Amino acid sequence: MEMSTVQVIFHIDETNKWPMVLANVKNLLKVVDPQHSHIVVLANSQAVLAYTADSAEHQPVMASLAADGVCFEACQNSLTGLKIERDSLSEFVQVVGVGVLEIIEKQSAGYAYIRP
Amino acid sequence: MEMSTVQVIFHIDETNKWPMVLANVKNLLKVVDPQHSHIVVLANSQAVLAYTADSAEHQPVMASLAADGVCFEACQNSLTGLKIERDSLSEFVQVVGVGVLEIIEKQSAGYAYIRP
Amino acid sequence: MEMSTVQVIFHIDETNKWPMVLANVKNLLKVVDPQHSHIVVLANSQAVLAYTADSAEHQPVMASLAADGVCFEACQNSLTGLKIERDSLSEFVQVVGVGVLEIIEKQSAGYAYIRP
Repeated sequence: MEMSTVQVIFHIDETNKWPMVLANVKNLLKVVDPQHSHIVVLANSQAVLAYTADSAEHQPVMASLAADGVCFEACQNSLTGLKIERDSLSEFVQVVGVGVLEIIEKQSAGYAYIRP
Repeated sequence: MEMSTVQVIFHIDETNKWPMVLANVKNLLKVVDPQHSHIVVLANSQAVLAYTADSAEHQPVMASLAADGVCFEACQNSLTGLKIERDSLSEFVQVVGVGVLEIIEKQSAGYAYIRP
Repeated sequence: MEMSTVQVIFHIDETNKWPMVLANVKNLLKVVDPQHSHIVVLANSQAVLAYTADSAEHQPVMASLAADGVCFEACQNSLTGLKIERDSLSEFVQVVGVGVLEIIEKQSAGYAYIRP
């Protein structure tokens, strides 16, 4: 089976949606080639809490997906609001200024948007 | 009033969102021409449970909308995870391999995305 | 810092999502130029209840954002279903016929879609 190449941004702003988002991404990786795709997970609001290094629950799955090429992003505004320091985030997390602007710009660049 | 023609994919992954999704589609059909539109409802995760023939609650509305031209799709991955056999689904349901890939491909093809 | 110009439609259909939606819009206005952008908040279903003039909770924030150029829209179908008269809405609210059609048309016109 030939693998698809995709551009997609997943949006999560609620902590309890992480299992769904990560399951969605894992299922997607069964049929797309991550090396030739752009798969972004953008977290804002409370959802960024799962990115802190001491938030162990989803870290192994995230780290594995990041190693496969999935890009995990955190909204700086949300981090500031929750008083989370950048250096408390797992190393694979990238910080963007304003999460909703990132979502807009990615869609403008042709990314599909999925909100599980 | 001239009817609009649209291309849209509705995304549902929670069982309790079915009333909202179906109401959205019914309202849309008041103002668009379904014969010249492409209206897709893509269900993944727990939402596929409502597609089984013995899940009576929403079947009459779904069957009516399907007869009007609305396309109801189920994610095969989700069916497998929930041990739902294809032949237990209502006859109007179409199965796609990976729901999120379907969402991405429809957006790439110009479909709008709505997540009620 | 140069301000971005954007086209985006935020979709809300649950009353309890108003704080998130309004926080998202406020954060966005820190980095985009609202005078050269098109920022729409489309409410349907129960979410339109927050638009009534006697629903005081979010009105000051909404009025302030509307003064900055944010467009607040209500779905007429939803108003009818909830027996809300147009003249009970705050003056900054614009009414559109069918909310989901508005979402589709805005995406067709190049707007990004965000569902907080």
